Amino acid sequence: MTTTAKPANSGPKLAPPPLNPPERLLMGPGPSNPDPRVLTALGASPVGHLDPYFVELMDQTMGALRNVYRTANHHTLPISGTGSAGLEAIMLNVLEAGDSAVVAVTGYFGRRLAEMASRAGADVRTIEAGPGDIVDPIDLEKMLAARPAKVVAFVHVETTTGACQPIGPMVSVAHRYGAMVVMDCVTSLGGIPIDIDAMGVDAAGSCTQKCLGAPPGLGPITVGPRAMAAVRSRKHKPHTWYLDLGLLFQYWGEESGEKKRAFHHTAPIAAIYGMHEALRLVLDEGLEARWARHTAAHNTLLRGLGRLGLSLFTPQANRCPTINVVNVPAGVDEAKVRSRLLTMGVEMGGGLGPLAGKVWRIGVMGFNASDIRVERLIGSLDEALRAERKS
Amino acid sequence: MTTTAKPANSGPKLAPPPLNPPERLLMGPGPSNPDPRVLTALGASPVGHLDPYFVELMDQTMGALRNVYRTANHHTLPISGTGSAGLEAIMLNVLEAGDSAVVAVTGYFGRRLAEMASRAGADVRTIEAGPGDIVDPIDLEKMLAARPAKVVAFVHVETTTGACQPIGPMVSVAHRYGAMVVMDCVTSLGGIPIDIDAMGVDAAGSCTQKCLGAPPGLGPITVGPRAMAAVRSRKHKPHTWYLDLGLLFQYWGEESGEKKRAFHHTAPIAAIYGMHEALRLVLDEGLEARWARHTAAHNTLLRGLGRLGLSLFTPQANRCPTINVVNVPAGVDEAKVRSRLLTMGVEMGGGLGPLAGKVWRIGVMGFNASDIRVERLIGSLDEALRAERKS
Repeated sequence: MTTTAKPANSGPKLAPPPLNPPERLLMGPGPSNPDPRVLTALGASPVGHLDPYFVELMDQTMGALRNVYRTANHHTLPISGTGSAGLEAIMLNVLEAGDSAVVAVTGYFGRRLAEMASRAGADVRTIEAGPGDIVDPIDLEKMLAARPAKVVAFVHVETTTGACQPIGPMVSVAHRYGAMVVMDCVTSLGGIPIDIDAMGVDAAGSCTQKCLGAPPGLGPITVGPRAMAAVRSRKHKPHTWYLDLGLLFQYWGEESGEKKRAFHHTAPIAAIYGMHEALRLVLDEGLEARWARHTAAHNTLLRGLGRLGLSLFTPQANRCPTINVVNVPAGVDEAKVRSRLLTMGVEMGGGLGPLAGKVWRIGVMGFNASDIRVERLIGSLDEALRAERKS
Repeated sequence: MTTTAKPANSGPKLAPPPLNPPERLLMGPGPSNPDPRVLTALGASPVGHLDPYFVELMDQTMGALRNVYRTANHHTLPISGTGSAGLEAIMLNVLEAGDSAVVAVTGYFGRRLAEMASRAGADVRTIEAGPGDIVDPIDLEKMLAARPAKVVAFVHVETTTGACQPIGPMVSVAHRYGAMVVMDCVTSLGGIPIDIDAMGVDAAGSCTQKCLGAPPGLGPITVGPRAMAAVRSRKHKPHTWYLDLGLLFQYWGEESGEKKRAFHHTAPIAAIYGMHEALRLVLDEGLEARWARHTAAHNTLLRGLGRLGLSLFTPQANRCPTINVVNVPAGVDEAKVRSRLLTMGVEMGGGLGPLAGKVWRIGVMGFNASDIRVERLIGSLDEALRAERKS
């Protein structure tokens, strides 16, 4: 029977007020607004996680994600956590105590990769770049020549500084020294060219809430053969059951269309509905068309910022269309401008860490990578800046 | 600038077919159908994770969850992963290498708690009970008398067998021997009485998709002062960054209404919208009324099963209204019956592990804990059984 302890604090209504979120145009570093069709998908008729329909949907989601990552890696799936959970799943499974990792740190998210590698028990060396800068592959080469590493990890587009680290040279150096490559592509996948197989990336993790255009909540990852071999030849089980890739792939299927699956956890069904629809929209649009749309909207943003007399913080050579880091003009209280903007229903981001108070961060991502939405941001920002300067 | 690698496999449309899930009455062991208002909440206007509205919503969600758990524990929040992630977060933070844990294993989910404790590096001893049985607190006492433990963990209601382990005696023995208590209440919270503070449970984790009536995807946990003291006095950082409770509470706020919060990960906003609405509905109904509704629907189910000549597997003394484990009648192919039922739009669960093929599992949970929905299951099950016996 049920437990019989007497309820302690019954009585008055303890419910919170009803949900009533304001309308927002999300032009910060993410989340971006999903396509309305994705929001509708979230509330679609729920099925069980063992329902034949859902099992088929898991296969479709993995297949679509492979197409978006441009990879033949079977081991491509959404981790049941946010983008960070996906990256940590890679780190905790590929690395173990005593392994060596080199992490390129171009900002907050690079430092986080290093922290994850260290939580996995690895011996971690970092190569640090200043804000807006990228890591010189020659420095990576020197470090690997001095002592090899099992893993080289880096952030493709560092959300805090806007710096885009070109993939090719990092992979080329790492592979030459026998290291595998783990890439954070949280702020790039779906917005700018990524081709996991052609670029030779061994494992990568992204998020759903930026250029893929779904809400935050899943960590889409792809794990190539070399990284899977490392996962399978571990000396000890990873220090996590929830993010154990071996168990996760028994659940999602070790082969496409595999009938026999071992229960692991209950998949987040509504979130996967949303991601499935978001991936469908990405692929229906076509990756090249989508990348071109991001670049076009980014150019519209640059012209608009120019009209307002605003400049970009990130050196031109390192820039990326998806995240635009803007210098706050002298004498302007940046937080007040963002607050004014928010009262107009438009969100943009502030600086993080050493750039706090010095920059704004404007995302051109997913559904919001459109001229009309960028122009609305520019118009509101113009108004907010004028009001702030008058005040 | 962006990377310039040439896309490899562009060309034909690679998109999956549009989402089109069938309608289901989910009467298995979970997920259950959410109230339609919860599904609507998922698609509500998205805000950023640093938006003042969202920060307020985080506080409201923590407050509502405290009321549902009946606890004053500040450290009460939804982990950004499924129910398993919440339980693993507790285990990985409370336990570290060299600690001792005793886990009561009454089925699959108890074994999983033991596995999680072992992934945390703890020395784990288990007390095993047969299917449908519960652990005798006297056996726990003997084990703790032989050697003390830092943590005693158990599953309140074991979803695989239907066995409900009374909370009071476990807590009382554990505390007498200086151990803290971690409880899995995945299949009980919101459906039968739980009062964390009155019962003295030190940390507990549940899920969203059963008696709370939201989709799967979050891991609501509560961590009491004694468990937080253990988290804070660790010798080493936990082997996870994503589930590091210290970092998570810096993000969610170490105090109610705290203004200063350190960014950790991007919260799964849509899922939290859904959970906020689900908790609101739970508290608006009132916990006692909700428990009574679960018991009444369970009694309706028992009468219906009686009409069909079906009996429960779980010994009467160990039963719980939320999960009903039913003996498959001799000569009946249980999987075929479930398939027939599914074609009628009704899901129920099969057995797991040693009970596979021998039992069905019927959930009476959340929105589905109503006479009308239980009667629909009984009617369909009657039809499916008759058809199967004729075939």
